[in-house]
Amino acid sequence: MAASLITKYEINADMGEGFGRWKLGPDDELVKYIDAANIACGFHAGDPTIMINTVRLCKKHNVKAGAHPGLQDLVGFGRRKMEVNPSDLYAMILYQVGALQGILKSEGLELTHIKPHGELYFYMLRDEAIMRAVLEACALFKVPVYACKNDRQQAICDELGITFQEEVYVDIDYDSEGNLVPVAKSQPVTPELCAERVLRMAEKDETVANDGKTVQLGFKGRPFSVCIHSDMATALGNVQKTRDAINQVNSPRRAV
Amino acid sequence: MAASLITKYEINADMGEGFGRWKLGPDDELVKYIDAANIACGFHAGDPTIMINTVRLCKKHNVKAGAHPGLQDLVGFGRRKMEVNPSDLYAMILYQVGALQGILKSEGLELTHIKPHGELYFYMLRDEAIMRAVLEACALFKVPVYACKNDRQQAICDELGITFQEEVYVDIDYDSEGNLVPVAKSQPVTPELCAERVLRMAEKDETVANDGKTVQLGFKGRPFSVCIHSDMATALGNVQKTRDAINQVNSPRRAV
Amino acid sequence: MAASLITKYEINADMGEGFGRWKLGPDDELVKYIDAANIACGFHAGDPTIMINTVRLCKKHNVKAGAHPGLQDLVGFGRRKMEVNPSDLYAMILYQVGALQGILKSEGLELTHIKPHGELYFYMLRDEAIMRAVLEACALFKVPVYACKNDRQQAICDELGITFQEEVYVDIDYDSEGNLVPVAKSQPVTPELCAERVLRMAEKDETVANDGKTVQLGFKGRPFSVCIHSDMATALGNVQKTRDAINQVNSPRRAV
Amino acid sequence: MAASLITKYEINADMGEGFGRWKLGPDDELVKYIDAANIACGFHAGDPTIMINTVRLCKKHNVKAGAHPGLQDLVGFGRRKMEVNPSDLYAMILYQVGALQGILKSEGLELTHIKPHGELYFYMLRDEAIMRAVLEACALFKVPVYACKNDRQQAICDELGITFQEEVYVDIDYDSEGNLVPVAKSQPVTPELCAERVLRMAEKDETVANDGKTVQLGFKGRPFSVCIHSDMATALGNVQKTRDAINQVNSPRRAV
Repeated sequence: MAASLITKYEINADMGEGFGRWKLGPDDELVKYIDAANIACGFHAGDPTIMINTVRLCKKHNVKAGAHPGLQDLVGFGRRKMEVNPSDLYAMILYQVGALQGILKSEGLELTHIKPHGELYFYMLRDEAIMRAVLEACALFKVPVYACKNDRQQAICDELGITFQEEVYVDIDYDSEGNLVPVAKSQPVTPELCAERVLRMAEKDETVANDGKTVQLGFKGRPFSVCIHSDMATALGNVQKTRDAINQVNSPRRAV
Repeated sequence: MAASLITKYEINADMGEGFGRWKLGPDDELVKYIDAANIACGFHAGDPTIMINTVRLCKKHNVKAGAHPGLQDLVGFGRRKMEVNPSDLYAMILYQVGALQGILKSEGLELTHIKPHGELYFYMLRDEAIMRAVLEACALFKVPVYACKNDRQQAICDELGITFQEEVYVDIDYDSEGNLVPVAKSQPVTPELCAERVLRMAEKDETVANDGKTVQLGFKGRPFSVCIHSDMATALGNVQKTRDAINQVNSPRRAV
Repeated sequence: MAASLITKYEINADMGEGFGRWKLGPDDELVKYIDAANIACGFHAGDPTIMINTVRLCKKHNVKAGAHPGLQDLVGFGRRKMEVNPSDLYAMILYQVGALQGILKSEGLELTHIKPHGELYFYMLRDEAIMRAVLEACALFKVPVYACKNDRQQAICDELGITFQEEVYVDIDYDSEGNLVPVAKSQPVTPELCAERVLRMAEKDETVANDGKTVQLGFKGRPFSVCIHSDMATALGNVQKTRDAINQVNSPRRAV
Repeated sequence: MAASLITKYEINADMGEGFGRWKLGPDDELVKYIDAANIACGFHAGDPTIMINTVRLCKKHNVKAGAHPGLQDLVGFGRRKMEVNPSDLYAMILYQVGALQGILKSEGLELTHIKPHGELYFYMLRDEAIMRAVLEACALFKVPVYACKNDRQQAICDELGITFQEEVYVDIDYDSEGNLVPVAKSQPVTPELCAERVLRMAEKDETVANDGKTVQLGFKGRPFSVCIHSDMATALGNVQKTRDAINQVNSPRRAV
C-alpha cells in the first residue's frame, strides 16, 4: 500500500550534508522548525556517523527521516552533470536508501520519504530513462517521493503505485513559466519574503515570478511541502519565518 | 526470533569483490558450487552495480546472499589495520548491510547472514569494544553472523539473541593452537587436500596443523560452514573438490 | 624549448591501470615491446604504489614514462561523461602530472610526455574551453602531448609552444571519415591484422576503414606513435606483432 | 644543496583544508598574518581547485607555500591510526608533494617546505621505518621539513642532507617532559596567552607546562617557526597577537 499525501502544509530541509570533519548547515537549530529531513546518504555528502547523528536528531525532534540520495560525486557535492547508465543509477539509489534504512533500524525509525538530490533531480527531468530508473528504485521502498510539480514524474509514480509529494521553494525564485531558478541566479531573500511567499502559495495557489508576473501553481487546495535550503547564510531566519507562516495556514481557525 | 544454525555442512565464499572496471575472482563459475555468498558492500570492495549483479547470480543459483562488510579502505582492500571508534564502526556496519538489503529488495531476496571481512574480522578479535559494536549492529538485522569458532563472540551473539555460525577454512593452514594461519604464510593447497580436510573435519572433528599435530575442532557433530577463498589461483578446483566432499558428508547414507 | 617530435615510429601503451588490490593488463610482459608508457595518475586508475612500480618497470626496460591523467572517476574508470569547469580541470591536470613527476623523482627519471585518458580525451574534442584548459596545464610541463591527429589541438599546441605528437590505433577500427571507432563497436583484431595495418600506415600513409574504403592519414612521412590497448584479451599478441612491424619500418635498410 | 634554516622567527599555519563544497578555517584572513602555509595535498583534505586557490593566496600575500601531506583518509581527516607499509607511504608522500609542485608550477612558485600532517606526524614518531620512509621521500624535494624538536628526526635529516626546521606550538599545551598535549586535552587559550608564550619561548628559551613547571626548549637562540592551528574557534585572534609578538622578537632593536 502506498503512503498517502501529507494532510497539512509542512517544511522539509536537507540535513546531514557534512562529511567527516566537515560540517554544512545549522542542523541542530534547523531541525526545530521543520517537519521532514532529507538525509544525505554518503554519495554527494554524509557518512555513516553523520547519518546516525542526523537520524537521532530527527528522532529527538519528531521530524520525518527521509533519504536524500545523490550522484556519486563527493568532490562536486552531487551538483555536476555526469552520465550514468540507468541500470547503474537504479542500483545506486537502492544502495543509498537501503544504507539509510540500515541506520534507521538502530533507532527504531521507519524511512518516511525519498527526495533525489541536486543534479540527480535535474537529470531525472532531462532524461526519461533516468527518471524511470530512479522512481522504480524508490518504489521498492514504498514511501512518497518528494519533488516539484511535474506531470511526467506524477504519472510514473501513479503507475508504480507510490505517492508523488509536491513541494515548493520560497527561498529561491520561480520564472514566469513556473520553473525554479537556480540558487546562483535567484535574488537573495529575506525571512519575511519567504513567509509572504508561503502565505500566497497556500492561500491563493500562486507565486510572483522573477519578472513580476503571477504564476498559478495548480495545487487546488492540496497541501504542499516547502523546501528550505539549509546552506544559505540566512537559512535559520528563513526557516523560522516560514514556520510561522506554515503554522498560520495549518491553523484550524483559518479553515473557516 | 533469531535465525537458527545451518542443518547441513555447507560452503561459503566471498563474492562481488571487484570495483568498477576491476574484477576479482571467478564469481560466475564459483557460484555453482557454493551454498552461501558473502557479498562485498562497497567499503573494501564492491559497488552498487557489482552488488546487484552478484545478488542476481545468487538468485539464479539459489545461493544464500549475505553481507560482507569491511573497513572503509578501498585502496587497502580492507586489509590494513585502522583505528576506528566503536560508535563509528557501528554506523558503518549498519550502512553497509542496509545498503545490501536495499539491493536485495529489487530481487525480492532476504538477507541471509553477515560475515565481517578481512581486517575488520581480526580487529573484532583484538578489541572487545569493536567486537561488541559490530555484533550489536549485526543483531539489528536478525541473521546469523559467520566466523571461526570464538568463545567471546559466541557469548555476545547469545546475549544479543543472534546465531553465531561457525565456519572452517580448508585452503589455508591451522596452527597447533587451532588458529588460522594467514594466506601468505600457509602452504599452497591442492583441491584434493581441501577435500581431504573437509572429510576429516566433519567425520573426526579434527584437522592436521601446519606442524603435523592433530587439532581437535570441538564441533561435536554440529555442521559447519566451509569458507573457500575466491581469489586463490586454484579457487575453482578447490571449491569443486570441496563440494564433492561436502555432498558426501551431507549424504543421508553416511548417517548410518 | 619544446620537446621535439619522435624520430622513429614507436609504440605506446597505457600502463599502471590497476588500483590497490586490483590489476589490469599484462604490464610486466607488455613493457618489453613498447617505447612509451602512459601511466595512470590516480584519478581514473592507479595509486602511488602502482605508479612507482610502473615507473620502475619503465626504467628497467628503458621505456618512456609519460602521464595519463584522467577524469576524477575511479568507479567509472574515467570513461563516463562528466561536466567539469575548465578551471577545475586545469588544476586536476596539474595535480595528476605533478604527482607522477614526484614519483619519477625517486627513480631519477624525467617526465617524457602526457596523454589524456579516455573520456577526458573525448571531452577535449567536444569542448574548446576544456581542450585549452588541458593543453595549458600540459604546456607547463614542457613535454609532448600525445593524441590522434586533430587540427585544433595541433594549433593550440603550436601556440603554447609544445609538441603535438600524433598517434594511430591499429587494434580498433577507423571509419571512412578517418575517425576512431570505439572499442565496443570495432571488429575484433588479430595480431597479424595489427601488423598489417602498421605497415600500410607507415608505408602508404593510409588505412582501410570499417566500410572497406581507403582512408588517407596525412602523415607525409612523419613517424607516428602506435597506441596498443593494454586491456584487450589479445593485447600481448597484438603488441608483439606490432613490434615486429614497427622494427621493420624503422629499419635503415627500408629507407632505400 | 639543502635549504638552510630560517633566519627569523616566523609563523606557519595549515591551509587549504577544505574539500569540494566544504570549507575549513579562515584562510583568507589568516594568510595576512603568517609567513608559511602548509597546504593540504588531497589525501586528508584539499582538492586540486582548493590547492590552486590556496597557492594563489600565498602568492598574493608573499607567504611560503609548503606541502602538508597526510594519510590517505579523507573521512577521518588523516587523524586516525592506520597501518601503512613504509614503501607505500614513501610513494604517497612523493605523490602528494609532487601534486602540489604541479600546482605551484602554474603560479611560477617554488615549493618551500614540507610538514607531515596529523596522524602521519605521530606515526613517524612511533615508528622508525615510517619516519625514514617519509623523510627519504621529502629529501628528494630538497626543502626543509617542519616538525617539533626531535633528535632522531634531526639525525635522519642531517644524514639525508635536508634541513630540519624546528617549530613550536603556542595554542596548545606542553607537558613537563616537553611533549605536546593534543588539542582535545589542552586548556583553551586566549590570543594574549599565545603572545606571552611566544615571547617567553624566544627570549628565555622556555615555556610553562600544563602542570606549572618550566620546560627548557633548547633552541639556544636559533629562531623557530610557530605553528598556529587554523581550525580553532579563536584562530584569527591567536594569529594576530602571535604576529605582534613575532614582530617584536624579530625587531632589530631587540638585538641590543
